[in-house]
Amino acid sequence: MSFSLDPRLSRDADFVGDLPLCRVLLMNDSRWPWLVLVPRRAGVVELTDLDAADRMRLIEETARAAEWLKSHARAEKLNVGALGNIVRQLHVHVVARHAGDPAWPGPVWGFGAAVPYREAEFRTIIEEARKGLGL
Amino acid sequence: MSFSLDPRLSRDADFVGDLPLCRVLLMNDSRWPWLVLVPRRAGVVELTDLDAADRMRLIEETARAAEWLKSHARAEKLNVGALGNIVRQLHVHVVARHAGDPAWPGPVWGFGAAVPYREAEFRTIIEEARKGLGL
Repeated sequence: MSFSLDPRLSRDADFVGDLPLCRVLLMNDSRWPWLVLVPRRAGVVELTDLDAADRMRLIEETARAAEWLKSHARAEKLNVGALGNIVRQLHVHVVARHAGDPAWPGPVWGFGAAVPYREAEFRTIIEEARKGLGL
Repeated sequence: MSFSLDPRLSRDADFVGDLPLCRVLLMNDSRWPWLVLVPRRAGVVELTDLDAADRMRLIEETARAAEWLKSHARAEKLNVGALGNIVRQLHVHVVARHAGDPAWPGPVWGFGAAVPYREAEFRTIIEEARKGLGL
């Protein structure tokens, strides 16, 4: 079985690039700068389904995404989460938060409806993320 | 500056034990079996405030907590998150979820009010967690 991205992830987000372990996506939701990291391993649902070497890659790639996002979005706080109640394929959200954003201080998951970027703006951020993540 | 636990964490949760990096707490909320891991480092807010060796410890201790919790609670899905919008001290939630639980499939953070365990039950789970985590 080879890696393939759950279609619900590719519907809500677009491809930024591949890090050594994870596919990086940018969510098309202008309410929050929001990256999603998906380990390119088949059949992985929980953290414990990865081996220790892959978990180490995952946390380092998450930190790399967090560092870029914090600086790019001048985030007051980052929210990092792996929930998977709806889409079971293991994926890690890295979300830039600001006091007073629509869901603050609650979580963003399941909050209201996405507000898509204008296409040109979305493409620009994806390009910046690629550069910032060295992709 | 030495490590001290944010009082809001010790108010909502009780001490299970110390892993090599993290203090482990059990949230006193019977709606969801729920552990919280707090790296015993001073002044740490984001994942990127830890060095790579500590991040590796954190993800391994998170996986260890996840493995125990999944088996203990027969969880359908685990939710792992580091938010910190309210309490800034870095802490990682590991929450056992079941289809049909009060917040399903949404996140638990900020959802309704905690339903405390009966004291004896809380103590029993803490003891089981200690044994299960080898503490």
